[in-house]
Amino acid sequence: MNEFELIEKLTRTLPTNKSVVTGSGDDCAVLDLGIPDKLLLFKTDAVVEGIHFKADAAPEKIGHKALARCLSDIAAMAGTPTTALVTLALPKIFEGAFIEAIYSGMGALARKHDVAIAGGETTTNPERILISIALLGTVPRGKAVLRSGAEAGDAIFVTGELGGSLAARHLEFDPRLAEAQWLAEHFPIHAMIDLSDGLAGDLRHILKASRVGAELLTSSVPISRAAKLASKAESSAKPPLLAALTDGEDFELLFTVASKHAVPLLDAWRLRFPKLPVTCIGKITAGEGITLRDKTGVRRLSAHGYEHFA
Amino acid sequence: MNEFELIEKLTRTLPTNKSVVTGSGDDCAVLDLGIPDKLLLFKTDAVVEGIHFKADAAPEKIGHKALARCLSDIAAMAGTPTTALVTLALPKIFEGAFIEAIYSGMGALARKHDVAIAGGETTTNPERILISIALLGTVPRGKAVLRSGAEAGDAIFVTGELGGSLAARHLEFDPRLAEAQWLAEHFPIHAMIDLSDGLAGDLRHILKASRVGAELLTSSVPISRAAKLASKAESSAKPPLLAALTDGEDFELLFTVASKHAVPLLDAWRLRFPKLPVTCIGKITAGEGITLRDKTGVRRLSAHGYEHFA
Repeated sequence: MNEFELIEKLTRTLPTNKSVVTGSGDDCAVLDLGIPDKLLLFKTDAVVEGIHFKADAAPEKIGHKALARCLSDIAAMAGTPTTALVTLALPKIFEGAFIEAIYSGMGALARKHDVAIAGGETTTNPERILISIALLGTVPRGKAVLRSGAEAGDAIFVTGELGGSLAARHLEFDPRLAEAQWLAEHFPIHAMIDLSDGLAGDLRHILKASRVGAELLTSSVPISRAAKLASKAESSAKPPLLAALTDGEDFELLFTVASKHAVPLLDAWRLRFPKLPVTCIGKITAGEGITLRDKTGVRRLSAHGYEHFA
Repeated sequence: MNEFELIEKLTRTLPTNKSVVTGSGDDCAVLDLGIPDKLLLFKTDAVVEGIHFKADAAPEKIGHKALARCLSDIAAMAGTPTTALVTLALPKIFEGAFIEAIYSGMGALARKHDVAIAGGETTTNPERILISIALLGTVPRGKAVLRSGAEAGDAIFVTGELGGSLAARHLEFDPRLAEAQWLAEHFPIHAMIDLSDGLAGDLRHILKASRVGAELLTSSVPISRAAKLASKAESSAKPPLLAALTDGEDFELLFTVASKHAVPLLDAWRLRFPKLPVTCIGKITAGEGITLRDKTGVRRLSAHGYEHFA
């Protein structure tokens, strides 16, 4: 049994009750606790030193990233974040100024999005810093965008440019909260997710939850300058398209909408968010898995076949 | 700046918003998210291998304890827990059966108290297991029992028997949810906390939040059999009274109520919960800090003076 099989097995046996509208398997849990016009969104996310950030990363950016990741999950449901708790697990010897700087970065981002930090706790993790954020948000009833609503024929969109995030962006990104709320208010978005595992991996989450497939136009995938530069700088680096498909930690929005809404959405988006590109990168199909189309034809993107792909 | 000063400093500068009724500094954050007749309780708590449990502890008990600690904090506000998320940070090499057993222990306790586990995440902590629980609960508006309501003259009560919890009880305790809800429904409880740091430490949290003092009758403090046995078994062990005052991890309820309610409360409790003792251990005073009264007179219990105490 591998890790994913174990998690699936555990998930099937978790206790539930009438508070749970959507449990594990989406960006956030969706809960009904009796708010007349809203559902609650509930999310936890942890960053660990040496895994999600390097030990020498600026502490303000560590704090920023810890909260931003959780906010991005609220965005992926088209929700509004409200209240966070912070769990800070630290080696016993720590610099007060370092911890203050972590909170400073987190607090600045929280203020920007009107999120309260209502407490939390400090505990000991002797070997490395671990920060876990628990976040609550709300979404109007009937307006939460799940992963499971994609339909064959949908246009697939992504915000921003992808790949190379680990060069800098993963510590600095601003979660796409306003963009996601605007999308859900103005268009019937079928499915949405934030890009944390990489375009290919996160698209697969939508496909699996919606029981559909996808065809991507390789020439349409927006590739970041960081991914292009990395590819030029080192011959061993990923080709830019592969970086955009698999690097992860982009924290952009990936969403699908009926094809008839594709052009109106693009036009309205450019007026509302002129600085942030949104790109149609392909379509949902009745099949399964991801295929890539370029001028030479169509080929399958396998789950473990990236090394053969380039 | 020591750890407590740092936390106080950080706490003062945390961003807040209109969702927060009571932020950090009580057992749970209390939130108003628009549920007509209720407020939300929001809590996170982490257990770490080697600190809160030994590496060879039974995994079912580790899972039980991780959730039970959080439930105990909801109990301390007289709330009802509803929904939890589980963050499991693990070394990369782990036994699937071990993780299943952690979830089994957690799930059994969740079912007992009708708590849903609505997801969470698994991440990597290379050196040791860390489990963080984020828990939501509710409490009727106006019924949350805070730490800050104790008044001079109040009787101080504690449930159960104290001390020696680390021998076994800390991995097996059942949070006092039904008892706390019953108390808040039937008596105007002024202040309540669950005992995690030890009677002396947690009573000080109430005293500080309520700006009062306390006088304890040493002969009334209920001492557990485990604390008495430990004291007999080893000459270097804490005397039983000191163990009851300072051992921690009892997860019993400590609460105060106007003295006129003390006898009716004792009588009603014995009918409702005949198997669980509740004991009046002293009274709230207009002063500050804790004094101990025994047949030889009154002496002060200082924060760092336990070694001189016995």
